[in-house]
Amino acid sequence: MVSPAELRSAGKREAIIDAARSVFLAGGFAGASVDEVAALASTSKRTVYGLFGDKKGLFTAVITADIEAAEHHSHDSVEALVASQDLATDLRAFARRHVVAVIQPHIMRLRRLIIGEAERFPDLASAWYANGPGRGHDTLTRVFTALAGRGLLRADDPALAAQHFNWLILSIPLNQAMFHMGDDLTPAELEHHADEGTRVFLAAYGVRRPGGAART
Amino acid sequence: MVSPAELRSAGKREAIIDAARSVFLAGGFAGASVDEVAALASTSKRTVYGLFGDKKGLFTAVITADIEAAEHHSHDSVEALVASQDLATDLRAFARRHVVAVIQPHIMRLRRLIIGEAERFPDLASAWYANGPGRGHDTLTRVFTALAGRGLLRADDPALAAQHFNWLILSIPLNQAMFHMGDDLTPAELEHHADEGTRVFLAAYGVRRPGGAART
Repeated sequence: MVSPAELRSAGKREAIIDAARSVFLAGGFAGASVDEVAALASTSKRTVYGLFGDKKGLFTAVITADIEAAEHHSHDSVEALVASQDLATDLRAFARRHVVAVIQPHIMRLRRLIIGEAERFPDLASAWYANGPGRGHDTLTRVFTALAGRGLLRADDPALAAQHFNWLILSIPLNQAMFHMGDDLTPAELEHHADEGTRVFLAAYGVRRPGGAART
Repeated sequence: MVSPAELRSAGKREAIIDAARSVFLAGGFAGASVDEVAALASTSKRTVYGLFGDKKGLFTAVITADIEAAEHHSHDSVEALVASQDLATDLRAFARRHVVAVIQPHIMRLRRLIIGEAERFPDLASAWYANGPGRGHDTLTRVFTALAGRGLLRADDPALAAQHFNWLILSIPLNQAMFHMGDDLTPAELEHHADEGTRVFLAAYGVRRPGGAART
């Protein structure tokens, strides 16, 4: 059982992360102060340092929390792929969930911030990559390896196939969002990118069945 | 004939753009001052304002100059595509030139800077997009429309096909570079991404010939 003290501590942690996200997004990493975060979360600087170590630890906690929430969104559909009986349908379903999970305004703002700071703070960029795109890529590589083993994908290099799939789905909306021009894509537009990206991916990596079902 | 005065003026313009690039990349857009640029270019602030209007005009001139230089690199090979007699070979050749032109360290630094500032200075992001990716996309759409007209591509939506091609070639190295982790890709690695991206693209959009030549 979770004790009341543990519950309070988890709530405090979450409040600090929410405050930190606002402060970082408003002023960038260099411009943000732990004082400001503590004040916004109605707590003491000492508590913030106690829970997160330093400003970098705090930023990494924001990254990790946001990426976990985004991954949670598509976790079930990526796991279902391994045992898929209808790959074209299941891959499209995963693609649709994946693009919606990634192209969220606060994730896109965080990504812009990290890219802008990547030269000055390479640790933050590495933390983002390791927790987000890198982990997602590892999962997808594992899934595609299994699917190739089942004879459902033709992928000599499953890691490359995973990258191609990921970017066929995400690149168009993601790069629009990087220039602050794609945050307002409609769900129908995101779905279209997911479907068309899946179609191109399966044309290259799918296994054609009699009648060419894998190409549709 | 170009007069000595015009030559001097072109040289001055170039020196100011070079100085501005250094100053912007070192301190970001907001942190840069026209004074600093003028001093580094050994000219007066008045000359800078006379030639470029204001700080935004100066930044836009840097963007335009760098993108023009990058586009120049792949211009001939994209134009050759329209009349191609061997699309797989010519598309691969263009892809190789395109990825090398885009994934240059100073272009990647500029792109990171613009993404980081896209919320505060949406004009700069729009200028980058219009002069760079947007223009490249228009050119490629025109080329793919012509190739579809010649029966060499199956592309109902040539604008989407152009986006898919572009991102299949660029996404992997570009997104590594955004997190400051891919500036050091070797020419052989870039070539591999160009070749594999072209292969996937042609599997989806190519016209298969007897013997399956378009898939190799």
